[in-house]
Amino acid sequence: MSDQQRPTFHLPSRRTGQKIALEEAISTHVFNPAISLPPVQRTAELPYVNTSYGADVKDRLTNIEARVAAMDKAGVALTVVSLTMPGIEGIFDPAVAVETARKVNDEIHELYTTGPHASRFRAFGCVPMQDPEAAALEATRCVLELGCVGILVNGFSNIGDADTVQYLDEPQCEPFWAKMEELKVPLYLHPRIPPPGQLGPYKGYEFLGGSPWGFGVETANHAIRLMISGLFDRHPNLTVILGHCGEGIPFSLDRIDHRLRHFQSQLVPCKLRLQEYWERNFVITTAGVKSDATFFDTLRTCGEDRLLWSVDYPYEDYDELGEWFDNLELNENSRAKIGWQNARRILNL
Amino acid sequence: MSDQQRPTFHLPSRRTGQKIALEEAISTHVFNPAISLPPVQRTAELPYVNTSYGADVKDRLTNIEARVAAMDKAGVALTVVSLTMPGIEGIFDPAVAVETARKVNDEIHELYTTGPHASRFRAFGCVPMQDPEAAALEATRCVLELGCVGILVNGFSNIGDADTVQYLDEPQCEPFWAKMEELKVPLYLHPRIPPPGQLGPYKGYEFLGGSPWGFGVETANHAIRLMISGLFDRHPNLTVILGHCGEGIPFSLDRIDHRLRHFQSQLVPCKLRLQEYWERNFVITTAGVKSDATFFDTLRTCGEDRLLWSVDYPYEDYDELGEWFDNLELNENSRAKIGWQNARRILNL
Amino acid sequence: MSDQQRPTFHLPSRRTGQKIALEEAISTHVFNPAISLPPVQRTAELPYVNTSYGADVKDRLTNIEARVAAMDKAGVALTVVSLTMPGIEGIFDPAVAVETARKVNDEIHELYTTGPHASRFRAFGCVPMQDPEAAALEATRCVLELGCVGILVNGFSNIGDADTVQYLDEPQCEPFWAKMEELKVPLYLHPRIPPPGQLGPYKGYEFLGGSPWGFGVETANHAIRLMISGLFDRHPNLTVILGHCGEGIPFSLDRIDHRLRHFQSQLVPCKLRLQEYWERNFVITTAGVKSDATFFDTLRTCGEDRLLWSVDYPYEDYDELGEWFDNLELNENSRAKIGWQNARRILNL
Amino acid sequence: MSDQQRPTFHLPSRRTGQKIALEEAISTHVFNPAISLPPVQRTAELPYVNTSYGADVKDRLTNIEARVAAMDKAGVALTVVSLTMPGIEGIFDPAVAVETARKVNDEIHELYTTGPHASRFRAFGCVPMQDPEAAALEATRCVLELGCVGILVNGFSNIGDADTVQYLDEPQCEPFWAKMEELKVPLYLHPRIPPPGQLGPYKGYEFLGGSPWGFGVETANHAIRLMISGLFDRHPNLTVILGHCGEGIPFSLDRIDHRLRHFQSQLVPCKLRLQEYWERNFVITTAGVKSDATFFDTLRTCGEDRLLWSVDYPYEDYDELGEWFDNLELNENSRAKIGWQNARRILNL
Repeated sequence: MSDQQRPTFHLPSRRTGQKIALEEAISTHVFNPAISLPPVQRTAELPYVNTSYGADVKDRLTNIEARVAAMDKAGVALTVVSLTMPGIEGIFDPAVAVETARKVNDEIHELYTTGPHASRFRAFGCVPMQDPEAAALEATRCVLELGCVGILVNGFSNIGDADTVQYLDEPQCEPFWAKMEELKVPLYLHPRIPPPGQLGPYKGYEFLGGSPWGFGVETANHAIRLMISGLFDRHPNLTVILGHCGEGIPFSLDRIDHRLRHFQSQLVPCKLRLQEYWERNFVITTAGVKSDATFFDTLRTCGEDRLLWSVDYPYEDYDELGEWFDNLELNENSRAKIGWQNARRILNL
Repeated sequence: MSDQQRPTFHLPSRRTGQKIALEEAISTHVFNPAISLPPVQRTAELPYVNTSYGADVKDRLTNIEARVAAMDKAGVALTVVSLTMPGIEGIFDPAVAVETARKVNDEIHELYTTGPHASRFRAFGCVPMQDPEAAALEATRCVLELGCVGILVNGFSNIGDADTVQYLDEPQCEPFWAKMEELKVPLYLHPRIPPPGQLGPYKGYEFLGGSPWGFGVETANHAIRLMISGLFDRHPNLTVILGHCGEGIPFSLDRIDHRLRHFQSQLVPCKLRLQEYWERNFVITTAGVKSDATFFDTLRTCGEDRLLWSVDYPYEDYDELGEWFDNLELNENSRAKIGWQNARRILNL
Repeated sequence: MSDQQRPTFHLPSRRTGQKIALEEAISTHVFNPAISLPPVQRTAELPYVNTSYGADVKDRLTNIEARVAAMDKAGVALTVVSLTMPGIEGIFDPAVAVETARKVNDEIHELYTTGPHASRFRAFGCVPMQDPEAAALEATRCVLELGCVGILVNGFSNIGDADTVQYLDEPQCEPFWAKMEELKVPLYLHPRIPPPGQLGPYKGYEFLGGSPWGFGVETANHAIRLMISGLFDRHPNLTVILGHCGEGIPFSLDRIDHRLRHFQSQLVPCKLRLQEYWERNFVITTAGVKSDATFFDTLRTCGEDRLLWSVDYPYEDYDELGEWFDNLELNENSRAKIGWQNARRILNL
Repeated sequence: MSDQQRPTFHLPSRRTGQKIALEEAISTHVFNPAISLPPVQRTAELPYVNTSYGADVKDRLTNIEARVAAMDKAGVALTVVSLTMPGIEGIFDPAVAVETARKVNDEIHELYTTGPHASRFRAFGCVPMQDPEAAALEATRCVLELGCVGILVNGFSNIGDADTVQYLDEPQCEPFWAKMEELKVPLYLHPRIPPPGQLGPYKGYEFLGGSPWGFGVETANHAIRLMISGLFDRHPNLTVILGHCGEGIPFSLDRIDHRLRHFQSQLVPCKLRLQEYWERNFVITTAGVKSDATFFDTLRTCGEDRLLWSVDYPYEDYDELGEWFDNLELNENSRAKIGWQNARRILNL
């Protein structure tokens, strides 16, 4: 009997078609960092990647048909799109930021959520955090008028120049957070490349600041700042979404709490252990991850109702990460929750 | 039948007495950062902790009898001591660094490895990385004359002032690494607080730079620099030890390699994927960790021959981490390797 | 500074007081297997245990005050009680079984669920499976009149003698299952010692049949029979509860499905893979388990909405298993679901 | 840019070519259960499988060229072959068993370990356990004269008829075990279908006795008997190999020991907890398993020096299980040990 003649038995394919992805970048005509109008910290999203990969990403940031085809192939029913990094946050001039955010949200609304593929898209709005009151207003418009399912912020915001930055825990951001809690929508805290003045630890290897390592460190720092600042004591109903399986925090969280017990209490304004905010105020996506160990380690720290599959298209591939997830050794109850049910609940889809 | 009368059955205690600990700090009379002679970046090891904890740590950094008693209680047969951070690396003047390293190693030799408790101690030598040729010489003296089982370096070295720093991947460190490979002893890469100029991401929460989070990021950055620099291509037999379950790298390593495939190749000088160096050139300790999930995630990335239990005394407690490890749900074959057998093999004890 | 003077920091206790336990045995006055009236297969529940343990268990099977005190200590808010094995299933004469089940359910109702500690107890009813039609009637009475939250069956039923047994997949049980589906309450499938004629594999070590190993094998066999028989194709809304982290099935389920693809299809009447019934029709408790590895392996096969903490009192100890669970390294979202929220949902509490 | 034109990056294939497989069945001309000479309990190895699968298996049990080709494709450097179940153990007449074992071992020696593909094969010898003294002699001949790397026994042995069986813990087997300890080679305890008289629990679904579930239960029972009997107290240096990730024992071992503390001590002759024998006297293979969860659960109970990859060809597929193992998310240090290094050490290859 030849190898070709051998009887086989194919178990049914595990690919599912209901997945929802929510760390998925687009670029717009009114604001395209790659062509540097208006002025932002960096003129290209991915300064360190090789040419062919960069060209492919650039095309796919605006190619809606290619995106829908890729979603079809990978079994992705719905994508929540958002403006790619550095986003509005990278604009130096607050007034330009306010105006640009408005235009970007309108374009996304037109092209994606009311466009020819409207059934396949939802959006996270962008906001001009350089002017927190204006950000609160724009968030309100996004959610109530444009149907956005949340707001996505690309880390710190530039205020005036490349190295003057504002983190979301700073007091002036308070009106924005109050509005977010009132609107009952999550904020997705997305990475961006650290400012030039903070690339010192990478001296000689500055590309690490724009690699998943640097992104993770920068974004985890930001999330830890939010927790320690007492933000979630003032606004206990806020939800912050982190990608990339929580940016490394799950691995270190127990040790951080274990050590902070010895720190001077006036340095640590928050009232609870960080683990408690983690479990209550954060929701995690798997964007960019295809490691089983990282996935299960993250799952153990937050539970299956607060972990959501995602991709990070077009930087990552819908199909590569979709196939990994569809075949991950996991019961179908948990897979459905992580794959799409949690997103439906948390984003009110 | 009262509760006191109920029959019970006690399974035999799981506490073992053969453990070896190897991220264990001491302070010396000839160099005590707490009293600021010679001048170093910071005048206290732990600027952010509360008073009673700080006083306790300060006492135990030099109290040999208390240490031995704590080892006895926790079932620790042997401790490998090393000079506490910032260590020699924090000295601004290279000539002072050279002289101080020599004095410190002599004092450790006298008080610990040939002292009244000599059977309970081994030492990692310290070296003046500010002068790499001198560091190579001192490493040789440590290993061949003083019986040191390896060298411990507290991260970057100051060169002249607080913010001018040198990482171990810089070209001038090459003679030191060549000697380390020749001596066939490991280098323990220990954390220290980032330089003042690199605390920007922690603005308002500078203590994070001296918390386990900041330590982990700083030390992981340093280890990733070593891998990317090509150091382990030039010296494939080097062994670098990282504490704290690998400083977060196990959680993110798969993703880093997954992404670096898209980076411009001239930016990434190393020849192999980082995972390959991780598995071949790194050895990990559990110092400071008492999370099962972190432990098992780390174990999965390196295997049970390259993971070693440790404590981080006196910052951590021998008994608290010893009890956690002794009772960790793990077969005794693996426990013995991680608890002491690996240390015996890797340190030639 | 003496060891007693050292500063310490106690993290808040992790003990919770809301837990619900649901594989918890009692004995009754109207039917007490220990004193052999009416005649059952075995005259003692635990023929192989040592004397002091056996006496303790015997006392606690009926000592309600001791049980409530143990619940208080362990943080158990509510216990679902059920008649201890072999239960009604061990009665040889079907008519006696019918009558005894009724008396037992009435006594449980009087002493537990409407007694002085009524707020702390719910009950699983017992049924005379020797007469499936009567079992359906008694199940109805239990649920609709006595407020039982489900039915518990101790494995196979004796029909006439010690070695003639009936499994729940046999055709005559169909009316009972139809009623269970209609009543929308779960059936807890509890272990019992295999019949004498099936102790052959344990020859010389017959006690293994009454050990957790023998119990697990017997009960897993029974559950696999239910799946293969097609029961859950006919009654897709049934819920069967298994204790002891699923009686070993989670470890082997993937391999069973992997191999059954090669079996003659007429031998395997069920329509789906066993994994699909496992995920849809089974709910698992941790009764008797205090192994982290077993817990997490089970969790991975069913998801956190279908795993429930339990004890197996008085054979096991509320506090020993409660302390294990309260301190298990797990996020509090999952712990609350597994500890009590799932029980509230599944049992309509 | 079309989908075909998109730049891709292929990480190097993870397939390795050094694997060793050791639960790999063959049939011989002098003893072929499929054609029932000499008389054995069952006339076919796999009475319940579908026709095309059965025919394929039957061919491949003797087709050496097909086996070598399959090994090549799957990256298997070496296979340790053994006579398929029920093997010599299924022969009713002890004298025939003695004679047949000798002939089978000679044929395996001629066709496999000194044949044209001798560099690709080693063998486990078979022995006539129906006559333990003769089994000790044949084991000696296998190891010292034929170069066998161990002995494989298919569970219980028939003594005279189908239902009279002998387990390996029975006193008359003592001379065989003493010889095994002296020869310093492992015994592979392989499953077989339980005797007809023990299929009662499967009544109506007898095929379960010949499914992975029934095999696992039967073989785990046997292994537990060995532990409890005190065999490993008398012969502490014995090594017993179990396939299928330990036949379910890893999942339940903690609970068995936890409960046996309450059993009458005279019933349990062994001196240690079962976990201690498990860690010292057992070696586990993954034969037949391709579940990550089962793999890691098993690994945690025995450590990476006592777990060995295997297949169970021709019942399983070299390539299917090889691909699973080669791509299992695991560091390469552990993979090499489990894939081939442990086999080399334990079998003295």
